[in-house]
Amino acid sequence: MSSPTSQVDKSGLDQQPAVKIALVGFGTVGTAVARLLYARPGQPSLKLTHICVRAAERKKVNWVADRVCWTEDIEEVLRSDVAVVVELIGGLHPAYDWVRQALEARKSVVTANKQLMARHGSELLELARRNRQKLAYGASVGGGIPILSGLAEGLAGDRLLKICGILNGTCNYIVTRIEAGAAFAEALREAQQAGFAEADPTDDIDGFDARAKLVILVRVGLKAEVLPEDVLCRSIRDLSSIDFEYAHELDCTIRQVSRAELRDGKLLVAVEPTLVSRRSPLAAVAGGENLILSHGEFGGQSVFSGLGAGGNPTAVAVVSDLLHIVRYPSSGLSPAEEPAVTPGEVSSDFETPQYLRLVVKDSPGILARLASILSKHHINIDAVLQSAGQDKAALPFVITLEPTKSSQVEAALAEIRKSSFLLEAPLRMPILR
Amino acid sequence: MSSPTSQVDKSGLDQQPAVKIALVGFGTVGTAVARLLYARPGQPSLKLTHICVRAAERKKVNWVADRVCWTEDIEEVLRSDVAVVVELIGGLHPAYDWVRQALEARKSVVTANKQLMARHGSELLELARRNRQKLAYGASVGGGIPILSGLAEGLAGDRLLKICGILNGTCNYIVTRIEAGAAFAEALREAQQAGFAEADPTDDIDGFDARAKLVILVRVGLKAEVLPEDVLCRSIRDLSSIDFEYAHELDCTIRQVSRAELRDGKLLVAVEPTLVSRRSPLAAVAGGENLILSHGEFGGQSVFSGLGAGGNPTAVAVVSDLLHIVRYPSSGLSPAEEPAVTPGEVSSDFETPQYLRLVVKDSPGILARLASILSKHHINIDAVLQSAGQDKAALPFVITLEPTKSSQVEAALAEIRKSSFLLEAPLRMPILR
Repeated sequence: MSSPTSQVDKSGLDQQPAVKIALVGFGTVGTAVARLLYARPGQPSLKLTHICVRAAERKKVNWVADRVCWTEDIEEVLRSDVAVVVELIGGLHPAYDWVRQALEARKSVVTANKQLMARHGSELLELARRNRQKLAYGASVGGGIPILSGLAEGLAGDRLLKICGILNGTCNYIVTRIEAGAAFAEALREAQQAGFAEADPTDDIDGFDARAKLVILVRVGLKAEVLPEDVLCRSIRDLSSIDFEYAHELDCTIRQVSRAELRDGKLLVAVEPTLVSRRSPLAAVAGGENLILSHGEFGGQSVFSGLGAGGNPTAVAVVSDLLHIVRYPSSGLSPAEEPAVTPGEVSSDFETPQYLRLVVKDSPGILARLASILSKHHINIDAVLQSAGQDKAALPFVITLEPTKSSQVEAALAEIRKSSFLLEAPLRMPILR
Repeated sequence: MSSPTSQVDKSGLDQQPAVKIALVGFGTVGTAVARLLYARPGQPSLKLTHICVRAAERKKVNWVADRVCWTEDIEEVLRSDVAVVVELIGGLHPAYDWVRQALEARKSVVTANKQLMARHGSELLELARRNRQKLAYGASVGGGIPILSGLAEGLAGDRLLKICGILNGTCNYIVTRIEAGAAFAEALREAQQAGFAEADPTDDIDGFDARAKLVILVRVGLKAEVLPEDVLCRSIRDLSSIDFEYAHELDCTIRQVSRAELRDGKLLVAVEPTLVSRRSPLAAVAGGENLILSHGEFGGQSVFSGLGAGGNPTAVAVVSDLLHIVRYPSSGLSPAEEPAVTPGEVSSDFETPQYLRLVVKDSPGILARLASILSKHHINIDAVLQSAGQDKAALPFVITLEPTKSSQVEAALAEIRKSSFLLEAPLRMPILR
């Protein structure tokens, strides 16, 4: 045993004047950010001076320093001498206007707002540059997982080609409950009762939440700009336990997977329920965790995972961004910013093995009919799976396809959907091995 | 399908004059760094001007620009106008002197040298500060895994309490071969034939390589300075297949685990073979991969994994550090630098459940004798495991202990070692669940 060398007070950090900070929004994340700022000793460099929140008088808490100004008026924040505005109100309005106004008032901005940064990120980063301010958004994706700094700084030397991940904890909770035997509606109700899912769960289960995060990951990791509405989103609503049974037969499970890939100057991008190998790190993601895989031309695959949501993990990302601004005050660049390249085309037409689940009224000749349609569309069948003991009157069975473009399968499905033996719309999912 | 917005050329990066770079060392990593610098279009900001290597004339390659100066003389590099020296010769000498001289000549340094940064990092960082230069060492731990930037930047806002990981791919290869049934010597030979292990494998299998990386992770993540020789290293040499059989019975496997923890102002730190739950991410690490878990007070657990070694992944880390220096030229801080706190004490005395494997000449009363010694040392037995069909003349069996400090178990083992029924020195390993 020995005493290690002390290194206290050797850096220049402590000599810098404190950077004044305004929190705009004081919900779960705002409260956690304030607590974290007070909990970290040796952070004299960050000084909370304003909290802007509706019904400010009612929201006041006694553990915040007396000198902090509570206000409902964003103008008061913008007129003040704060250097950084932390936007934590979420949504597009009034967040978009307030962030613009803050940058134009020569204040840097830290935001956790994924919808804002997915839709208006490019424009707001340009506005920040013009005003020589920083716009940091590490908290907008993956909560406490340091994914944006990892892609932008730690892997800056690589050329990233693929990003793939589980970006929505609510969906992950729901799919794991369906895997355990629950029906979709029941799993959703459980998620709502457990506080995972919103009363209106559309954003989560139909993929819009993950899509916003994916758009941001594509900007930072693949250096490409894509609009949210150009990203295919497919819901997890149609999943049922039988799909997990068949997936397990294929040594896979099912997850809501967000992925993007640069290939031949084209950007492929989608959020959809997907079969993943049970040996993939994607299959091991539990509950509300998030996990992101990046694949670089030189460094190969890197994996990042951790708590993807929640007040404290998100607050860590916000405070890390604040510290970045303090540490690198004179850099012209916002964290996670580099010139973006333009993919020639954006598409969701990944070429992968595919899973088709059909529910039919069983009768002779159905498989021959399906095989004939698939063959006409130049699609090769890999296997046909049919669990024993299924109801012949409403028989769910599965056809897996050799690597095929989604568009090609959809063309065949358009024809298959006309068949009278079908009892439900077919469910198609890509298979990632 | 639509064309995404272009963002090319909007940042200030391209307007900066190119930063001149010297590579010192042109082995696997040096070659990969040079190739990566040439392979990345849109990197006019980094300009290779010198390559310093022994027998420079013989090492010349035709894909490096003609204007690059090949030299055997470090003095020529130090006298030149290069802004950054990339040290890739490894080892302490002459790397230590050359890095010092480069910093004193007002050049920033990027290094992949873990032994140098573990032993002299604190002093060299101070020297860099005094000379207003950067000293970046992201490539010294975890190859292409952006772990140091993740801890220093992405998780800067958290207070990290624990770091734990698999930091040596050679050991990981060897233990997975022993798990598959090979004897230690055979597994080592295979690792050497596969190019994983050095002719002298001591650094890897006795833990010194992982220890250097752990010392650096402790500095960057836990903000604490510890000397390599103050970190307990225990070899994987004594592992045998029977240990994996017993580990599997405990729903565990065995890995060389490096871990550090701040607790009550004390730093606990060790590199040793360890039982880990088969459900832990540590158990899933394959071949030459590395994986690091960090645990923060606010953000909870984050996981980073990827290729822990190799020319290209390490080159990605080197180039990422170079880009960091280019992006943040005027910051007073090196990447991954913050004031370190001093733990009151450094120890390896973790309190965990423990695994004891004993090989005895079976006779009545042995277990009673062992139980009596353990009880005298206030150690509670959790379970006794004895596989069927073992040789009674040299019987390997296992005692697991409830959470106990290593020092307490070692005291009991000192007494147990005197017993005449013991045929081999007992093997003790901590159990991480």
